[in-house]
Amino acid sequence: MDSGEIPAALTHVYDASAERAHRLISRLQKKPQLVANHHLLSSQSIDLVVEAASQDAVRDAALSVLQNRKDLMIMSAGALLDESVFAVLEDACREFGRTIYLPSGAIAGLDGLASVRSELEEVTLTTTKHPDSLRGAKFFAAHDMSADEITKPTTIFRGPARNAVSMFPANINVAALLSLAGLGAQRTEVSIVADPSATKNSHRIEARGRFGRMTFLTENVPDQDNPKTSRLAALSAVEMLRRICSEGIRVGT
Amino acid sequence: MDSGEIPAALTHVYDASAERAHRLISRLQKKPQLVANHHLLSSQSIDLVVEAASQDAVRDAALSVLQNRKDLMIMSAGALLDESVFAVLEDACREFGRTIYLPSGAIAGLDGLASVRSELEEVTLTTTKHPDSLRGAKFFAAHDMSADEITKPTTIFRGPARNAVSMFPANINVAALLSLAGLGAQRTEVSIVADPSATKNSHRIEARGRFGRMTFLTENVPDQDNPKTSRLAALSAVEMLRRICSEGIRVGT
Repeated sequence: MDSGEIPAALTHVYDASAERAHRLISRLQKKPQLVANHHLLSSQSIDLVVEAASQDAVRDAALSVLQNRKDLMIMSAGALLDESVFAVLEDACREFGRTIYLPSGAIAGLDGLASVRSELEEVTLTTTKHPDSLRGAKFFAAHDMSADEITKPTTIFRGPARNAVSMFPANINVAALLSLAGLGAQRTEVSIVADPSATKNSHRIEARGRFGRMTFLTENVPDQDNPKTSRLAALSAVEMLRRICSEGIRVGT
Repeated sequence: MDSGEIPAALTHVYDASAERAHRLISRLQKKPQLVANHHLLSSQSIDLVVEAASQDAVRDAALSVLQNRKDLMIMSAGALLDESVFAVLEDACREFGRTIYLPSGAIAGLDGLASVRSELEEVTLTTTKHPDSLRGAKFFAAHDMSADEITKPTTIFRGPARNAVSMFPANINVAALLSLAGLGAQRTEVSIVADPSATKNSHRIEARGRFGRMTFLTENVPDQDNPKTSRLAALSAVEMLRRICSEGIRVGT
């Protein structure tokens, strides 16, 4: 984990669960200090706070991080779909001269999408997962349906990202990132396909406008430490950190 | 052009052709100062120099920009395929604490590709263009062939990026960006398809590794000011500038 490959040091850690914090610290060579609350993270002499906790953590802690004049990396991007949260944090970035970084997560192509943002006419996301990976989603209870009933590839949901994230919480971050980079949660169209033969989580993005067309497909193996997330999502956070911390030649918008 | 949408001001301009420089300045509302050589760009009290000239301009000017402790945005990415140029500029970035920015150009997905770089096993690029867009490439003379002979979609080249860029100079930037973001110019496989029915320039990237798979397709309309380039390439430079100049919420690795 802390291989020293990126010129950054993790100096302080906070977790609502002290046990989880200790488990993380035990796996690190250079031991960070465990602090008693999130205020004690951003009041230190540090450059960046990384949220890898929950949407609640973003709502509770993000503003005070910016007020303490620290940059912030957010993994629980779904929290920013709440327009009042987004507006408050965007204002705070401007007021305190800070940046919030959102890694591309389990998708890719956000470099291109951001470039053509002002010309976008249509953005769609099709997520295909094994029914087991969708199990427990609010959608099934709401439709009196079970993931076990699905025996062939089936499009079980089609609608705006705004609705998809409330029905499929496990898909929130991908739909949120795409909405924030592109046309917003109301105009981003999401389809969810349950496929009993799927061995990977795949996300297909299609975008259209005056610039032409873009199609991005990521077929992701699960992360070995946390099978609920994709390996790519973890790697994109590491790459974001590398970009924040390194001078040098930076390839890609 | 200088709409004021990005919080940056273009203060100085240099072009080997004074006429081209005057033509640019005539189109701007806030007139930048025309300087007599590239040294007079980076010796000013500025933050960033943007190269949008040629590979020669990169070779001639990039190092002195970094030595003058200015960041640099490079459009002629092909210049960095020369390993000695790359090494010198990378060292200079480190020595002077500066960054060289390479926008994603006419392709997209470099956010994802950079994230999985250490796990990449295979990267391929398939560029499809109308034969007219390939006309004049060294390839045709070398193979005693004419673009006019091509009457149906034809794969006219397949080989490493290193060879593609010497045969198809108009495709250099895309192949160079992909090589730099991924596996390098020797291990990035390029195919060039001439298609008389093509109305757009399209670039399809496929990447594979332990993380899974990625596929990125951009189908680009030509830029209206410069039909030899894609509209996306110009838009990605603008987006890169926006990211360099703005605080706030940044979506995407």
